[in-house]
Amino acid sequence: MPAVLFCSNLDDPEEWRPPMTKLMPDLELRVYPKFGNPLDIDVAMVWRPPQEGMGQFKNLKAILALGAGVNQLDLPSLPKGVVVARLVDEVLGKAMAEFCVLTALRYHRNLDVHERNSRLKKWEYIIPRPAAQRSVGMMGLGALGGQAAKLLKTVGFTVCGWSRAPKKIEGVECFSGPDGLYKMAAKCGIVICLLPLTPETQGILNKKLFDAMPQGSYLINLGRGGHLTEADLLSAIASGRLAGATLDVFNTEPLPEDHPFWNHPQITVTPHVASTGGADTAAQLMVENIRRARAGQPLVNQVDRAKGY
Amino acid sequence: MPAVLFCSNLDDPEEWRPPMTKLMPDLELRVYPKFGNPLDIDVAMVWRPPQEGMGQFKNLKAILALGAGVNQLDLPSLPKGVVVARLVDEVLGKAMAEFCVLTALRYHRNLDVHERNSRLKKWEYIIPRPAAQRSVGMMGLGALGGQAAKLLKTVGFTVCGWSRAPKKIEGVECFSGPDGLYKMAAKCGIVICLLPLTPETQGILNKKLFDAMPQGSYLINLGRGGHLTEADLLSAIASGRLAGATLDVFNTEPLPEDHPFWNHPQITVTPHVASTGGADTAAQLMVENIRRARAGQPLVNQVDRAKGY
Repeated sequence: MPAVLFCSNLDDPEEWRPPMTKLMPDLELRVYPKFGNPLDIDVAMVWRPPQEGMGQFKNLKAILALGAGVNQLDLPSLPKGVVVARLVDEVLGKAMAEFCVLTALRYHRNLDVHERNSRLKKWEYIIPRPAAQRSVGMMGLGALGGQAAKLLKTVGFTVCGWSRAPKKIEGVECFSGPDGLYKMAAKCGIVICLLPLTPETQGILNKKLFDAMPQGSYLINLGRGGHLTEADLLSAIASGRLAGATLDVFNTEPLPEDHPFWNHPQITVTPHVASTGGADTAAQLMVENIRRARAGQPLVNQVDRAKGY
Repeated sequence: MPAVLFCSNLDDPEEWRPPMTKLMPDLELRVYPKFGNPLDIDVAMVWRPPQEGMGQFKNLKAILALGAGVNQLDLPSLPKGVVVARLVDEVLGKAMAEFCVLTALRYHRNLDVHERNSRLKKWEYIIPRPAAQRSVGMMGLGALGGQAAKLLKTVGFTVCGWSRAPKKIEGVECFSGPDGLYKMAAKCGIVICLLPLTPETQGILNKKLFDAMPQGSYLINLGRGGHLTEADLLSAIASGRLAGATLDVFNTEPLPEDHPFWNHPQITVTPHVASTGGADTAAQLMVENIRRARAGQPLVNQVDRAKGY
């Protein structure tokens, strides 16, 4: 009987076991490092692979990521022939879109300023404007970015979007290709990053992008820490090019205590809480992919290992 | 030639004059206190009446409020026969609904906690949940509350609503009557007040309401300062019944510097910025109501002076 390995320092396997067992009564779920005979493992649910890698699992067919991004799996290091799937369930997509709306509206309505003034006993009226008067630019129009762009539009924002390959989303002005990014940035007072982290997108939130954005714009990074060129952000805020940033992802998490992002008056640090796959709702997707992996069928949300997402 | 009086210490008449004159070229707009012969005035655009009242304007037919609420006009003191209209234009309704979404999502996603932690260099993970898992209760289902309830539902929240008389809004669980308020409150982790201020709703945000809400709930008051029983709010937060409150309206505005709401760790003060009528978009409504008042027709958004809204 083949077994499924569960390997994560962030997720609780006992949240996943009941809903998955309900759907797949003969599921054998083994939690790292107590996995018994490594040759029993044919599927692995993984946030980050163990330090010794996945090489010992000689019968491994598939890795089911416990997150929407897979850069932390270090795809090139994985055994050839192993297929990989991202975790993008309905709940994760919804909660992510809601977090985009929250953080974009917070800047649009100057709530960051009002919060600070509330602590300083300062009454400073700022004329409220409806969201339609603000353009939000979404970097990444895949499963997550596309859904978020649509919700931002529904709430009332004017929405632009950028992706590597051209896309069409109703009501969203879509840009693509390397030049398209800077054309979009020039129109947007708020830019949100929901890109996958690949060699091409590493450090893409940098001086060139910030210089293209209108003076006094805002950055919201919900992708990966590796998207951001940190020194460029600090300079762009110091010069006034950017008025503020909300960062949910970092190269090292938790963010180290001596990092300059902490307690920066114009940066809000959130502890990787933009979204998560709910075990109860994502269990169905996991079980479906275990079945597909065992039947040799393509997975739902299967990653193109060459592209990196 | 009759003239229109403009009387406000908050609004700039020169923002209103150009768009209104464009729509009504023969408009004569006179700004308090330089209104010339008081008998020329047949319509008045008013935020708050002057201290001496409106009695000197013997030919006054209509008062067009410069806000969505009219409690500050002191309706019983106005000359009999004068009709009153509220300013609820499309932009005001949209911006208000957006502010409801922002402040509700902020509490739902614990952004108030993350903001504080960001200043304290504290990484505290809180599992993100989609909005559908939170019930928001809207007090007031008129032009503003109804529109806000719909947008909260569209974004993803589970939404309840309460109004004096029974209402039906698709996707919103509606309650009415005195008992209905406490039935609704018992279901809602976030309650938003968008009621008109009348003798019946004075002080309605009080201990009885807070005691009906689930432990650890949040209050958002976007109505009027008079809706809130201030001492009850402070007690409810101190006891943990309420986890926090966002207050946009106050009995005295600007909020006095020695008020305990300022710098309270669980209260966010915003300076009456939830929404405003935009002169450029509301000008059309104003001009329409000037024409109707002069023709003796019912106004758009006309107030029932007996009900008070």
